[in-house]
Amino acid sequence: MSDVEPIRVGVLGARGRMGTEASRAVDGADDLELVAMVDEGDWLHSVADAGAQVVVDFTNPGAVMENLRWCIDQDIHVVVGTSGFTTERLDQVRAWLEPKPDLGVVVAPNFAIGAVLMMEFAARAARYFESVEVVEMHHPQKLDAPSGTALRTAQLIAAARAEAGLAKAPDATEEEMLGARGSDVEGVRVHSLRASGLVAHQEVLFGAAGETLTIRHDSFDRKSFMPGVLLAVREVVKRPGLTVGLGALLA
Amino acid sequence: MSDVEPIRVGVLGARGRMGTEASRAVDGADDLELVAMVDEGDWLHSVADAGAQVVVDFTNPGAVMENLRWCIDQDIHVVVGTSGFTTERLDQVRAWLEPKPDLGVVVAPNFAIGAVLMMEFAARAARYFESVEVVEMHHPQKLDAPSGTALRTAQLIAAARAEAGLAKAPDATEEEMLGARGSDVEGVRVHSLRASGLVAHQEVLFGAAGETLTIRHDSFDRKSFMPGVLLAVREVVKRPGLTVGLGALLA
Amino acid sequence: MSDVEPIRVGVLGARGRMGTEASRAVDGADDLELVAMVDEGDWLHSVADAGAQVVVDFTNPGAVMENLRWCIDQDIHVVVGTSGFTTERLDQVRAWLEPKPDLGVVVAPNFAIGAVLMMEFAARAARYFESVEVVEMHHPQKLDAPSGTALRTAQLIAAARAEAGLAKAPDATEEEMLGARGSDVEGVRVHSLRASGLVAHQEVLFGAAGETLTIRHDSFDRKSFMPGVLLAVREVVKRPGLTVGLGALLA
Amino acid sequence: MSDVEPIRVGVLGARGRMGTEASRAVDGADDLELVAMVDEGDWLHSVADAGAQVVVDFTNPGAVMENLRWCIDQDIHVVVGTSGFTTERLDQVRAWLEPKPDLGVVVAPNFAIGAVLMMEFAARAARYFESVEVVEMHHPQKLDAPSGTALRTAQLIAAARAEAGLAKAPDATEEEMLGARGSDVEGVRVHSLRASGLVAHQEVLFGAAGETLTIRHDSFDRKSFMPGVLLAVREVVKRPGLTVGLGALLA
Repeated sequence: MSDVEPIRVGVLGARGRMGTEASRAVDGADDLELVAMVDEGDWLHSVADAGAQVVVDFTNPGAVMENLRWCIDQDIHVVVGTSGFTTERLDQVRAWLEPKPDLGVVVAPNFAIGAVLMMEFAARAARYFESVEVVEMHHPQKLDAPSGTALRTAQLIAAARAEAGLAKAPDATEEEMLGARGSDVEGVRVHSLRASGLVAHQEVLFGAAGETLTIRHDSFDRKSFMPGVLLAVREVVKRPGLTVGLGALLA
Repeated sequence: MSDVEPIRVGVLGARGRMGTEASRAVDGADDLELVAMVDEGDWLHSVADAGAQVVVDFTNPGAVMENLRWCIDQDIHVVVGTSGFTTERLDQVRAWLEPKPDLGVVVAPNFAIGAVLMMEFAARAARYFESVEVVEMHHPQKLDAPSGTALRTAQLIAAARAEAGLAKAPDATEEEMLGARGSDVEGVRVHSLRASGLVAHQEVLFGAAGETLTIRHDSFDRKSFMPGVLLAVREVVKRPGLTVGLGALLA
Repeated sequence: MSDVEPIRVGVLGARGRMGTEASRAVDGADDLELVAMVDEGDWLHSVADAGAQVVVDFTNPGAVMENLRWCIDQDIHVVVGTSGFTTERLDQVRAWLEPKPDLGVVVAPNFAIGAVLMMEFAARAARYFESVEVVEMHHPQKLDAPSGTALRTAQLIAAARAEAGLAKAPDATEEEMLGARGSDVEGVRVHSLRASGLVAHQEVLFGAAGETLTIRHDSFDRKSFMPGVLLAVREVVKRPGLTVGLGALLA
Repeated sequence: MSDVEPIRVGVLGARGRMGTEASRAVDGADDLELVAMVDEGDWLHSVADAGAQVVVDFTNPGAVMENLRWCIDQDIHVVVGTSGFTTERLDQVRAWLEPKPDLGVVVAPNFAIGAVLMMEFAARAARYFESVEVVEMHHPQKLDAPSGTALRTAQLIAAARAEAGLAKAPDATEEEMLGARGSDVEGVRVHSLRASGLVAHQEVLFGAAGETLTIRHDSFDRKSFMPGVLLAVREVVKRPGLTVGLGALLA
């Protein structure tokens, strides 16, 4: 239907749940071609051998940095859905990309449009409320806590609070059982729940005198992420450098 | 402390719960002067006699239109917190204001900053989700259902959906017990809960394939409204015509 | 593995979502034998021809009563998961069963253990709170509103309130947009939300002076119903008469 | 109106928020007499001098054990609403009471009927779900985390799981930021949120394959606790030994 060559895509973590779904979605898109599916124990170089222009990484926090380094060395664009990206990791990716002015990496903690809006709204509301807490809830097979989406949300909120000149949220806690008040992500408390039956959920709670505002996102099905994954694949080849969050691609 | 004359304010519905709180807040503000407190059975003209420049109306849906007409006739600006404003009522107020180019009316269904952000976010998210429902929850002494905030939220959502070209939300209901699917506000379903223990709460639920996004506001205390009421009093004297929603005053 | 003959089971509505899952679950159980799968347009008598001892009905409110009458006529036990059972329908089933002292029918609005506990807790809490409202939320393909689970929950609550001598819940609503306050199920207000992304969810909200108690059940996957369906099939052959709700089988 | 002498009651922590409300409630009850109000810096012995038969303690986790020891020494019954009671503290109170066969102590982490039902329901549901997490949310002036109610709830759940022979809840977390997974109360994860606008709230989340069950209690007003406080004062004089939780007094 078009003279344009499809974008050649490889998937890492292709036998995992998100990787399986992503492979299927790429395979079903007219303008994309699935050229490699790689998982633990497979030969990573087969991605380069197959001529992949973009790699989609849904592996795990322990493997993703090595994958990224290798892809950037091979001049392959990367869309990363794997979680666990701290500020340090993002700085590392930026450093790796510096000598490669044409190469793009998109790191998105969450590909669901609802999650992207949740983060946008959280950043917007942050300046108006003296208190804020983040609660993320996931299935018990998840390896990292907090989730990448929760970390990213907390970082956005912390930045907005700093810009608005807000002081630390009030908290008179004197006697705390270890861990009760959650983890501290740049001054924002983040709590991670794990339970069977859950899929992927997050709540951001803002509080001021006499009122609270809550923004909640529920993902019930991995399918909800696929429109975002395909969008990122199409955009990463046009956007050199590091892009964090799907929001930047929507604006 | 200042050469500026304080703004002279009268409160209608001054013995009701919101009116009492508003009278106290006006009285406590250096740049405002509380000149009249009127309630059912009182002499409305005492407001004009006292030289009020702004009237704050926290009466009820049955009385508010008559009050508005009288204030506009008397060239008194009005801040309205009373609920029950349909599109027809707003059009009526605009018509009354037409011959008075210097007079301002602010109709705000909700003066809490969290509620204002909830409405802003709801309008922003509306275009991305095929489904949406509004649920408002209040104490059982409330006279009208849905609440003014819920009506306003639904109108904003309906306008955003229309602009984005969204079709009617999917709904296969064939057998409905009367009222089960809530009220229909310009195509958006709104549900009103009433229960002891509740104060004022609202939830907007957006849905798309595999995901939902929920925005919720909880007011636990009337005090949370007062910063917004005072802001409206200060702004209404500078803004001729009809302003709907506190959001316009914040932008 | 056992000398006991497996129970012979037919499924009505076998090509629907719940029917498909139920057929698979029956087929996978050692002590049950799937002997017939029937859907719209199929020959209902094939169920009797196949010698089914128990029929599982996941059809629709428009078809279920005729199916029930036919099964009872044929001396086949029935497990009904189809919704839409009013007090009148239940009385009708009881009347049909009267001349058949050995035949059992289980009508369960919900087969998930969480839903059964939600109903038990709602009935227990009902006597302590002057206010109560039920909100059920489902995918937009659902045909009836309120859901069978919500109807059953409201009936249980109404019965508990009556027994405790509670008056009508306080509600000062004077101006109501049609449907805003939901449907009235024996004095209990029930609200039905429909949105893409949702599966099957219900919340019961109790209120008293200064406090609320909320009981919520979320079904994310039809698989959560299957342990309950198989339990009902095994129990219905031993329980003559009408049994309403899975709770009775758990106690 | 009655020949019965009123019960003589002293309140410790009488100038705190709960103590103030409790003093008012005792003072307003016909069958109780408020004989002493003591707070930090006051002379504790004035309670004994005033002939108090029951002391109500709403002080703080740092002071309550010393108060309890003193009251027991003085043969004064105690109703404790102060939080921070671990299993060790309860054992200590039991030891102190051993030589006093007529003396009663009621330790209740929460006096709201809704909270008591929440705990009862949580204990009942615990055996049916492989996963459970507790989230408590309070105003930021609270000194301890988790709350006494959350600790008590987690202990009840842990006991019910042990009795049902449930294994540890599934949790594959490998990389955890310190505190993300909350505090560990006898194997149950408890998360404590603190935010302005909040009063006192708790959610218990149960999960199994494909479903979750959530029980939530919201206290919006200290008044909701007073019926429970008065009940405990009337009952403690008739119940020697240690009673934990208001539930025991309701059954």
